[in-house]
Amino acid sequence: MSLLVVGSVAFDAIESPYGKVDRIIGGAATYFAVAASFFTHVNLVGIVGDDFSATDATIFKNRKIDTAGLERANGKCFFWSGKYSQHLNERETLITELNVFADFKPKLPEKFRNSKHVFLANIAPDLQCDVLRQVKGNPKHVALDTMNYWIERTPAELRETLKHVDILMINDAETRQLSNEHNLLLAARHIFKLGPSTLIVKRGEYGAMMVDKRGVFCVPAFPLEEPHDPTGAGDSFAGGFMGYLAGCGSSNDAALRRAMVYGSVLGSYAVEEFGPERLRKLKRSEIESRARHFLKLTQFRL
Amino acid sequence: MSLLVVGSVAFDAIESPYGKVDRIIGGAATYFAVAASFFTHVNLVGIVGDDFSATDATIFKNRKIDTAGLERANGKCFFWSGKYSQHLNERETLITELNVFADFKPKLPEKFRNSKHVFLANIAPDLQCDVLRQVKGNPKHVALDTMNYWIERTPAELRETLKHVDILMINDAETRQLSNEHNLLLAARHIFKLGPSTLIVKRGEYGAMMVDKRGVFCVPAFPLEEPHDPTGAGDSFAGGFMGYLAGCGSSNDAALRRAMVYGSVLGSYAVEEFGPERLRKLKRSEIESRARHFLKLTQFRL
Repeated sequence: MSLLVVGSVAFDAIESPYGKVDRIIGGAATYFAVAASFFTHVNLVGIVGDDFSATDATIFKNRKIDTAGLERANGKCFFWSGKYSQHLNERETLITELNVFADFKPKLPEKFRNSKHVFLANIAPDLQCDVLRQVKGNPKHVALDTMNYWIERTPAELRETLKHVDILMINDAETRQLSNEHNLLLAARHIFKLGPSTLIVKRGEYGAMMVDKRGVFCVPAFPLEEPHDPTGAGDSFAGGFMGYLAGCGSSNDAALRRAMVYGSVLGSYAVEEFGPERLRKLKRSEIESRARHFLKLTQFRL
Repeated sequence: MSLLVVGSVAFDAIESPYGKVDRIIGGAATYFAVAASFFTHVNLVGIVGDDFSATDATIFKNRKIDTAGLERANGKCFFWSGKYSQHLNERETLITELNVFADFKPKLPEKFRNSKHVFLANIAPDLQCDVLRQVKGNPKHVALDTMNYWIERTPAELRETLKHVDILMINDAETRQLSNEHNLLLAARHIFKLGPSTLIVKRGEYGAMMVDKRGVFCVPAFPLEEPHDPTGAGDSFAGGFMGYLAGCGSSNDAALRRAMVYGSVLGSYAVEEFGPERLRKLKRSEIESRARHFLKLTQFRL
C-alpha cells in the first residue's frame, strides 16, 4: 500500500568531526521518503525552489518516489546549516533560511488522496491538519512528528491535530515537554488522552521505545564505531517504520515490532555517511542483513 | 557454585522525591549479595562496626549468605548520605564517613578461597588485587566494578588489577574515562587490551550493554512508572548477573545473555523501594515473572 509523506525538502550544510559538506539534499521528507521507499511506494508532498535541479531530483527518481506533489516555487529551497559537537551528541544550528518553505501550503494531488498510510513530518500543526482534511476516507495509520517549536508556540493547533493521529513519533525531550511528565510511561498515558494510541520515543544513541495499550517494546540503537552525521536519523527511522508497516499491510503487534526494527536499521544506515548518501546506495539485502544483526543484538532465551 | 563478593557493607541515609530514610542498610556488597542469593550460594567479605546489630544481620541470614568473612571492628560502619534530584537522574553526596571501612583489609576465610566466581565491588584496586591473590586456583569468572575516584587516583593499581579480571562492569561515564574513548565499541576494544574479555556497560534508565569478542548484546532497563530510589541498582544488577552465572554453571553466550536479563530484573526491583527493602521481600517467582516480561519488552521475529 502506498504511503504519503508531507514535509520539508531542503539543502543542508553540515559539519561534523568527520568532515563538512556545503550543500547536500536534506529535509525530513527526503530522508523519510528514501528510507520508506525500500518497503513500499511513496508519494511525496513538499515544496522546492528553482535551485532544485533535475540532478537533485534523481534521489527520488532512483527510488521510484512519486513527486507529483512536489511543488516548484520561485525562490530558493529551504536551507539549513548545522555543526555537530565532537561526539555528535550536540548540534548547533548556524543558519535556517525557510525560503520557499515559508509559504508552503501542502496540496495533495488527487491520486494521493486515498492514501491509507500518512506521515506528517515536522511542519506547522495547522498544515499537518490541513493535509489530513485532504485525505479521503479513514487512513489506516496516521503518524506525526513535531518539535519543541510547535509544542511551545502553537499548542492549541498541535492538540487539535493530535486528535486525528494514531502514532506519535518524537524524541524524549519532546515527549517530556508535550506531556509535562518526565517518566516516559506516565508521558505515554498523558499522550494517549490527546489522540495517539501509539507513542514512539526516539532516543538517539539509546534506540527507540514504543508504548501502546499492549505494553512497551524497546529496540537499541545499532552500535556503530564511526557514525559520521546524525542528520536525518530520526526521519530515516520514521521512514523505515512507516514504510515497513505500509508495505506489510498488517498492524498487529508483531508487525509493529518489526517496523521498530526496520526503522532502527534505516536510522543506523543514515548516520554512516553525510546527508542521505548512505541511503542513496543502500540495498535491500543490506537492510535484511542488519535486521538479522538486530536479532543478535537483542535476543535471548530463558 | 558459590560466589564470592568483596565490598562495602554500610548504612545509608537517602532522600528522594518519594521519601527519606535516615538509616538503612546499604553498601555495594549488601545489594550484590542479596541479589545474587536468589541464584546461588554467596560468600561475603566485608567489614562492619559495632553499630551493626544482629537485627541488621538478618538481611544476610534470611538469604543464607555466608558472613564468615564479615569482619567486626571497633567503630562505626561506613556511612553514606545522598539526595536524589526530582527525576532521580542526578544525586548529590551529602556525607561520606568511611569509619571502619578506612582500614579494611579483606581477609578470605579458608573456606572461601576456592571460589570459582568472584565479584570485586567498588573498593581500592590494590585491595581488589589482594583478594585475588588469596583465591586459590583459577576462578572461572572474576568481575570487577570501579569508579572515577580510582580511575583518576590509582590508575597504575587499577591497570594491574584489570590484568586478572574477565568481566568489567562499569557505567558509561566510567567506560569513557577509563578508555579515553567516547564511542563504546572503541572503548571496549581499548579495555580488552587491559585484561577483561567482557565489558558490561551499565547505562541506568537506558539499560545495559555487553560487549565481548562475539559482539554486542543490549538489554533495556525495565520501564517503571515510579522508581523510588536508584541506590544500589548497579550492584543489584551485578548481583543478578554474577549470581545467575555462578548458579547456572555455564558461560556460553546464551548464559551470558540470560545473566544480563537477570541482572536487569534485580536492578529493576532494587529501585522500586528505598534501600534494599524490595530485594529483601523479593520472591524467586517474581524474578521469573519479570524475566518473562523482559522477553515481551525486547523480542521480535523477522
